[in-house]
Amino acid sequence: MTRITRRFLHARGLTQVGFLSATLLVGSLSAAGAQIADALPSWNDGASKRAIMEFVTRVTRQGGPDFVKPAERIATFDNDGTLWAEQPLYFQVLFALDRIKALAPQHPEWKDTEPFASLLRGDVKGALAGEHAAAQIIMATHSGMTTEEFETIVKDWLATARHPSTGRPYTEMVYQPMLELLAYLRANGFKTFIVSGGGVEFMRGFAETVYDIPPEQVIGSAGKQKFEMRTGKPALVKLPAVDFVDDKEGKPIAIQKIIGRRPIAAFGNSDGDLQMLQWTCEAEGRRFCLLVHHTDADREWAYDRASTIGRLDKGLDEAKSEGWTVVNIKSDWRQVFLPEKK
Amino acid sequence: MTRITRRFLHARGLTQVGFLSATLLVGSLSAAGAQIADALPSWNDGASKRAIMEFVTRVTRQGGPDFVKPAERIATFDNDGTLWAEQPLYFQVLFALDRIKALAPQHPEWKDTEPFASLLRGDVKGALAGEHAAAQIIMATHSGMTTEEFETIVKDWLATARHPSTGRPYTEMVYQPMLELLAYLRANGFKTFIVSGGGVEFMRGFAETVYDIPPEQVIGSAGKQKFEMRTGKPALVKLPAVDFVDDKEGKPIAIQKIIGRRPIAAFGNSDGDLQMLQWTCEAEGRRFCLLVHHTDADREWAYDRASTIGRLDKGLDEAKSEGWTVVNIKSDWRQVFLPEKK
Repeated sequence: MTRITRRFLHARGLTQVGFLSATLLVGSLSAAGAQIADALPSWNDGASKRAIMEFVTRVTRQGGPDFVKPAERIATFDNDGTLWAEQPLYFQVLFALDRIKALAPQHPEWKDTEPFASLLRGDVKGALAGEHAAAQIIMATHSGMTTEEFETIVKDWLATARHPSTGRPYTEMVYQPMLELLAYLRANGFKTFIVSGGGVEFMRGFAETVYDIPPEQVIGSAGKQKFEMRTGKPALVKLPAVDFVDDKEGKPIAIQKIIGRRPIAAFGNSDGDLQMLQWTCEAEGRRFCLLVHHTDADREWAYDRASTIGRLDKGLDEAKSEGWTVVNIKSDWRQVFLPEKK
Repeated sequence: MTRITRRFLHARGLTQVGFLSATLLVGSLSAAGAQIADALPSWNDGASKRAIMEFVTRVTRQGGPDFVKPAERIATFDNDGTLWAEQPLYFQVLFALDRIKALAPQHPEWKDTEPFASLLRGDVKGALAGEHAAAQIIMATHSGMTTEEFETIVKDWLATARHPSTGRPYTEMVYQPMLELLAYLRANGFKTFIVSGGGVEFMRGFAETVYDIPPEQVIGSAGKQKFEMRTGKPALVKLPAVDFVDDKEGKPIAIQKIIGRRPIAAFGNSDGDLQMLQWTCEAEGRRFCLLVHHTDADREWAYDRASTIGRLDKGLDEAKSEGWTVVNIKSDWRQVFLPEKK
């Protein structure tokens, strides 16, 4: 039983039913798909949930006018702010800041070099103020090692790091309603992809265990790599140079380059997702586009048009004019995160 | 029933058994997997076939020392010279030459510009002699249109064009033993990818119907693209600039970028595949690497160390030292192509 299945069952109060019946339930869920009355228990009944379920019902109804073959049921999801939280800073930036601290003993020159000097003095805001500061921090922490070494670094960090406001592991800062949505779409024959501005190799460090999304269905920003022999074995070494930025126009371009098929459903939360939603929904045939609107300062964070992180401005306007679904976290989501494990 | 399934059944003399029993047979094949005595009927019994089947049996034997989880059963295939033929020129070059002729009326300036002038006079060899000639021809024929327009152009060409020596559609110039191998691996839980120097959008024009490989499992060389609004609708326009060359060191890099997981089996035929095979097989765990050696001038073409197309030189040496399987087409393949349809 995968982690996401456990979460799913947990959310439905089903963790006590035992492994066998849980497995059977998931089996019948997969088979029955849209027929299940509540595959989205963390969603309140309302327009957003109804729109999702109506879309899925229509594109999966064999012989119906909107039927889409399973091979063409491509759904793309942004990650930061859509599948997991992104405040007070993108989690990958928090990872990079932790790495700077961990690597500092090997870089005595950082004491006198910005943005590292400010960071090491604890002045995150000052450090990130410089024009190229974020890029310098990412380069310093995301290159120089092999892809396999980087994978280990990411997994070790995820296993021990805690979110600065909630104290929870980052992998528990994922939106339970969106986990249910991913599972619901897959149970209905969809292939779910992440298409995020985040680093592809960073996201692969948790996408399979947390979202049930295998590495080949994770698309993101990437640095250049070099193939070389290291002690007689082939290795891929991460270089300090940007290869591709998977944001804004980059998202539909990456979708075409890597998936090669236009999605029929796309999910995002910021203006960085706008072009992905346009590419998905401004086309022939039944389509579904959704933006998560962060409106809940109590259970999560509230931000939109004025935020530097996850700004949602043009997207809100375009959602209105195009009829895209806008999730109001406060009213649409019965729960945001799973309760902490005791 | 997909085309590849029909071909597979045809090769086993099963086209007369009717649709229902054929479907049932395929169903039980998928279920039984490695237990089927001859899933590779176009392969002669010999060391190559035995090596393939032994590898698959080992990595799929639950509880065995070499067992690999289905999610990690990644197999990558070169295309030109591995899945379909590549003589007398790469088929994509032949496509480009046909397109130059078709586009010439819109380009009166080509009459006085190389390499187009030579081409239009029928001097292919002269045209391709210039240092940048091939790149110029590819740019002129692979850019300026949207990705969807290009898809239509490729599919229209494949539907009507004929191979210059055999007179057959290019999609019939695929190696029947390799189609069986793809199906055999998939029946055993493998996910099969193309990783080829060919253009990714060209290959997607036939990979799904001919190989049963969906667009998101096709990796290849690519040009840059631009996202723009065309008559109010979002479009991706192909630009005359190279984005990525998926050859040699590019192959493991593309595998890591796009698949994000090291293959456990890789199949190629030229020195352009060498690094992909090194990346796959020079690693821990049970691995399988195979090179197709073109040795059969009667049924196909014979070429290796001295060929400008599909040169296999270093690869032959490394296969020997590393113990990779080298397919001798002449002796290993019972049939190369399916007989022509009457």
